Amino acid sequence: MQGKRTPGLRALAFDVFGTVVDWRSTVIREGRALGQAKGLDVDWPAFADAWRDGYGPSMGRVRRGELPWKTIDELHRMILDELLARFGIGGLSEAEKEDFNRVWHRLDPWPDSVDGLARLRREFIVASLSNGNVALLVNMAKHAGLPWDAVLSAELAGRYKPDLEVYRKAADLLGLAPGEVMMVAAHKGDLRAAGAAGLRTAFVPRPRERPNRDIDLSYDAAFDVNARDFLDLADQLGT
Amino acid sequence: MQGKRTPGLRALAFDVFGTVVDWRSTVIREGRALGQAKGLDVDWPAFADAWRDGYGPSMGRVRRGELPWKTIDELHRMILDELLARFGIGGLSEAEKEDFNRVWHRLDPWPDSVDGLARLRREFIVASLSNGNVALLVNMAKHAGLPWDAVLSAELAGRYKPDLEVYRKAADLLGLAPGEVMMVAAHKGDLRAAGAAGLRTAFVPRPRERPNRDIDLSYDAAFDVNARDFLDLADQLGT
Repeated sequence: MQGKRTPGLRALAFDVFGTVVDWRSTVIREGRALGQAKGLDVDWPAFADAWRDGYGPSMGRVRRGELPWKTIDELHRMILDELLARFGIGGLSEAEKEDFNRVWHRLDPWPDSVDGLARLRREFIVASLSNGNVALLVNMAKHAGLPWDAVLSAELAGRYKPDLEVYRKAADLLGLAPGEVMMVAAHKGDLRAAGAAGLRTAFVPRPRERPNRDIDLSYDAAFDVNARDFLDLADQLGT
Repeated sequence: MQGKRTPGLRALAFDVFGTVVDWRSTVIREGRALGQAKGLDVDWPAFADAWRDGYGPSMGRVRRGELPWKTIDELHRMILDELLARFGIGGLSEAEKEDFNRVWHRLDPWPDSVDGLARLRREFIVASLSNGNVALLVNMAKHAGLPWDAVLSAELAGRYKPDLEVYRKAADLLGLAPGEVMMVAAHKGDLRAAGAAGLRTAFVPRPRERPNRDIDLSYDAAFDVNARDFLDLADQLGT
């Protein structure tokens, strides 16, 4: 089982938030529904962006050892509690907060994600490789119908991307050399780190992930593949 | 998502060798094919039994700290090298030995396994929980069409069943309390340990696993469920 056009390639490891699923639209939609139910007046796009903006810095505190290991569920909850205060949102029960925090388990896929993964899976092992914890990724896969062969997570390395150990651990768990695995991501920093760990790289820009931000979406010859979406990736890998 | 007849049950964790797949028939069949190709005269049923019989003691050496952590692939290979000598099998190249060692990645499922897992998966998270390493389980799932939501392995705990940490780690990775997870196995020792770790238990005897051994196949009220096969398990769990 290896790609006709990519000798030696055995597995694809996917970044998830933004690459496979559209976190922003889902968080905004669920925020609006919660706001209607509770009579809240909140700028939900700004709330979604702020929640996501808190993610990198909170992982950074774990990566630098300022916080002990915490799952993304725990980090999302820390950020949520700060945002509820900042946005002046009161009146939510503990159960309501916990349920809203789990919106990250219920993110919807991009239109090409499920079909693209299904095609790629015919020829390669397809695995998640997300900073999201295993429980989050398993629940998301059931929600969104993502046909993973393996749910791999930074949690299994006890480190967060872009630490190189995360990419190496993924290859090791699959019983493969790093060069037999291709990281697929919409974010160039993730791919540069994967490349430094010896993985191959595929860039799939997702212009709708953060439509209100100036993100670098340009193809780059430093990556082994640049693809428009997962169907184009399947075409280019010959599956 | 929880069983109609089993309040609070969210996930099923399956032992794999013997419970989901028929290791003995597959090893015998591949042994015979190898023997024909290489002109070997070997009692392949005895060889298969001896290979499997080496498994518990070699894991025991890891569990007691007499060996550093080794994956099941590594332990299977240690045993294989002993057996090739004991059965007087020569003339295999390193690539042939390595390929034969990977027969454990290509085991065939019992006739009810795939359909049963697919039914159970509609209502529960279905995960492997095997002493087999992740790579072995991922390759086996692709070979046999096993529709796991999550490939969990003792490897992720760095311990082997029946150490209780393996069962607890599985529940933790799924974000569940032990009592929200049911261990499914054909082996009573596995279930007793799972129960001691706080998991629920389902016994599915597999009389064809070791037809030449006197194995305890009797139902036992100590387990939460006793089922004839995975379809009967799905019936009893109301899925």
